[in-house]
Formats: sequence, structure tokens, C-alpha cells
Amino acid sequence: MILSIIGVGLLGGSFALSLREKYPNVKFVGVDNSLVNQKIALAKGIVDEIVTLDVALEISELNVLATPVDAINKLLPYMLDHLPEGRTIMDLGSTKEAICQIADAHAKRAQFVAVHPMAGTENSGPGAAFKELLTDKYVIICDKHKSNPESLGLVETFLRDVGMKIYYMQPAEHDLHLAYVSHLSHISSFALGLTVLDKEQDEKAIFAMASTGFSSTVRLAKSSPQMWAPIFDQNKTNVSKALGDYIELLKKFKDAIDQHDLETSLNFMNKANDIRRVLAGIEKK
Amino acid sequence: MILSIIGVGLLGGSFALSLREKYPNVKFVGVDNSLVNQKIALAKGIVDEIVTLDVALEISELNVLATPVDAINKLLPYMLDHLPEGRTIMDLGSTKEAICQIADAHAKRAQFVAVHPMAGTENSGPGAAFKELLTDKYVIICDKHKSNPESLGLVETFLRDVGMKIYYMQPAEHDLHLAYVSHLSHISSFALGLTVLDKEQDEKAIFAMASTGFSSTVRLAKSSPQMWAPIFDQNKTNVSKALGDYIELLKKFKDAIDQHDLETSLNFMNKANDIRRVLAGIEKK
Repeated sequence: MILSIIGVGLLGGSFALSLREKYPNVKFVGVDNSLVNQKIALAKGIVDEIVTLDVALEISELNVLATPVDAINKLLPYMLDHLPEGRTIMDLGSTKEAICQIADAHAKRAQFVAVHPMAGTENSGPGAAFKELLTDKYVIICDKHKSNPESLGLVETFLRDVGMKIYYMQPAEHDLHLAYVSHLSHISSFALGLTVLDKEQDEKAIFAMASTGFSSTVRLAKSSPQMWAPIFDQNKTNVSKALGDYIELLKKFKDAIDQHDLETSLNFMNKANDIRRVLAGIEKK
Repeated sequence: MILSIIGVGLLGGSFALSLREKYPNVKFVGVDNSLVNQKIALAKGIVDEIVTLDVALEISELNVLATPVDAINKLLPYMLDHLPEGRTIMDLGSTKEAICQIADAHAKRAQFVAVHPMAGTENSGPGAAFKELLTDKYVIICDKHKSNPESLGLVETFLRDVGMKIYYMQPAEHDLHLAYVSHLSHISSFALGLTVLDKEQDEKAIFAMASTGFSSTVRLAKSSPQMWAPIFDQNKTNVSKALGDYIELLKKFKDAIDQHDLETSLNFMNKANDIRRVLAGIEKK
């Protein structure tokens, strides 16, 4: 059996590294525009061979589409056009509505499975890939009923084999929730990093004064712009609404501080403390 | 020698636990309004005895004022009034300008040392105290020239003994930087937690969809409102400016997303990526 990874970055690379342990006899081939990524993917043993997209489609039982979401939108129709009967494509994109709409418009929709693993780090590329990334994490499959049982079964088997917990959702529901629990976090972190960098010219001072709290809040500001710009764009409506809600709340917080209104500030923070329950749940995952 | 901890919480408690290892013969006494904190402080061996503030001032060589900053403002004049000659008070407050102004107005200013350790967690109270909290972290001393050499020397010795790196600063400079590298992080995190909680009624969905990135960004939303409300209030002008800068940047980011302006989004994020250098510096600490 041959499995292809289209876009051997953090997510596709980690998925492959984890699967290889379980399936020593499966051959993994990789497709990537970047020569650097190709070299690293081979050197780290993420894939056995680099091939063209057309070759990957011709020889692979399962094609894992793990590029940024703008490239997924471009590649998916072409890949479905050239996908032999009985073969499967799964994507790993962080947005689902636009991708599923493109798949829905295609005659071979049933050979596609729409997947989003709830895992990642602020680092990107095959150099950052590691085989434990997906272990014990949740993964969302959208519109499962639109995939044929064989393709869905194959994908679910592989996802369970890497230790993921499968959760089913509608694409619109997925994109709405993600705007709040993932996309907004990244924007708040990018903006926080930028605000501090704009202000703090003297890095020595930042080093001296920033504690671990600062590090954890701006960690996501290290994330890949090339990956995130198209995610925010594809999930524009939800992200814009979430960001608007966040800005409104920050304004109210600022007003309370400006007006020495400690009661309102305390009230905001006491409500926010309720996130403890949520985080406890996440850390239990 | 006797040392007193006024407010045996996370910071005062961790300072005491770390010092006790180096000074087995020093007696540690604690002052705290909360009976619960008193019990925990004794049970964890943070202090040997709970005493009243007046007794602490009478018997202690060094008094460590580790309450929330609003209580520091209230207690400091009284403590200086009743401080015997040759004794010292140090505070551990997260704001410095207001506290130093109060100290400056007192005849015994030279017996006070204004200190802020750059360390903390999202947890609070003596139950959260641990002896490694301050190790290898930076600590800021403000207006060192206003403290007499004996008091300053004593405080610096203890700070170095717990493994802290001393950094000197003016109170105004301290409060300005802290607004950006600490206070703003906490507000952005509180507001992020609240935004998501307001939207997400179904916690199961949050658990399933939130990844480690979300956790690290909202971790600080677990912080103590009673500790932070007075900090934001005392550093009102700087915090309001920092928060204003942050809100303006978020609005520009939102406009770029609304207008499909990927170039501007990419530009924001590429600049924000520069935080890698800063974080590398912090993690080296």
C-alpha cells in the first residue's frame, strides 16, 4: 500500500511519522513545492520518496492533503479530477466550509473525507514535525455522510491508529467554533506581540521584565503567516465577528480602567476565571 | 534573626520557602487576614508562626510586604511609622510608581526597598507557592539610591540567595514597561477567555475544538481578580495607553480581514513573528 502526503509540513509530517510506526510496510511518498521541505522530509524519514502530484495520485491508496488552506482549495478539484476509482483524498485544513463546498461541487465527492486535527504548534515545516503531535488529540470529520463508507473507514482507521479521538461536525458549525477557540487566539497573540514590539525598542528591557505569562500569551505570534492569512480569509465572516466581540469587550475593560471602576473590572475577571473549568477539560484530553 | 512575610500568598510564600533552605536558623513569621491562608502557610512550613502586624514589626529584621498593591499602599505608611530603627521593609508589588511616591513622602524612606520580582503563575495563595518560583528570574529594584546601604544590601543578598538576577529601574520606567509586557497580556487573556465563554455555551464543543494554543493564550485568565484589579488601577495611565494601542492594532487587523487584504494581514504577522527573538531571550533567562 502507498500513502501520499501532499505538503510535508508540521501536520502532514507528524501524521506520517506516527503512521509509519504502525505500518512499517506502507510506502509513504511526499509532494512538496519546496526543495528544502523535500530534503528535510527525506532526511527525517517522513517519506520514502518525493514524487510529483500526478504520480502520487496514480499510485496512492490514500492522499493526505496537508497544505495551507488556500492551496487545498486550488488542488482539491484537480486531485479529484485525476483520482482513480476506489482511492481516497483526505485534507487536514483548519477551515472546512469553503473546502467542503468545493468538494460538494465535484462528482467524486464520496472519495473525499474532510478532516481537521485539533493539534499544532507555533512552529511549522517538516523540521518541526514529531510523531506524538496528534496523540490523544481530538480530530473533527465534517459531512461524514457525504464520504463513501470505504473512504471514511480507511481515514477513521488511520486517525485512530495515531491515537486521535474522532468528533463529527457540520462544516459551518466547525468554522464558527474554530473562529472563537483557535483563530481568535492567534489574532490576539499576533496583535499582542506586535503591540509590544512597536512600543519596546529596547529588547534588553523586554527580556528583563517579561515573565512566563507574557511568553505563553504571545507564543502563537510565532505562527506561520503563510498558513494563517488564508485561514482568516476563508473564515472571514466568523473571524470578523469573533474579533469584533473581542474588541468590544476590550473597550469595555478599558473604560472600566479609565473610570477607576474596579467593580466592573473585578466582575469581568471573575467571569473570565470560569475558563478554569474549560481548561481543566482541555488538559484532561 | 526573624523575617516576616506580610501576605503569605504565591509570591511571599515562594520567597519564604526558597529562603528557608538557605537560612535554617532564620525564624519566619507570617501576617495574613485570611484564616485559610494562615493554616496553609503553617501546614506547608512557609512560616513558623502567625503573628499580628504589630508584633511582626516589633520583632522582624526584615518585613516582606507581599499583599496585593492596594493593600501595600494602605499598609506601608503605617508600617514605616512603627518600624524600629535599623530594620527594613521591602515590598513585592507589581506596580512601583504609586508605592514609591508613598514611601518618598515618609521620613523613614531609607528603610524601605521597592522590589518587583518578574515571576508568578496564574495561581494564587500559599497553596500555589513553591520554592523554585523565583529561581533564575529577574527582579527589579526601584530608586535604589533612596534606600540606605544596609537595607539595600540585606534585600539584595536575600534576592540573590533565592537565585534572582537584579535589575535597577526608575518607578515610572518600570510601570510603563510592565503595562506592555505584563499587564496587557493579562487583560488580553481575561478578555479572550470571556469572549469565548460568552459565545460558547456548549463546553463539550470547546473541549473538542480547543487545542494547546488556546490553552496557553487564555491561561492568564485564571489569574486572581483581587490581585489584578488594583494593579490595573494603580497603573491606569500606562495600561490604558497600552490597551488603546492593542485595540487600534486589532481594528486594523480586522479591517484587513474584512477587506480580503491578505497582504496587510501577512505584513502584520510577519512583523509579529519578530517576537521569536524576544521569546528566545526570555526562555534563555
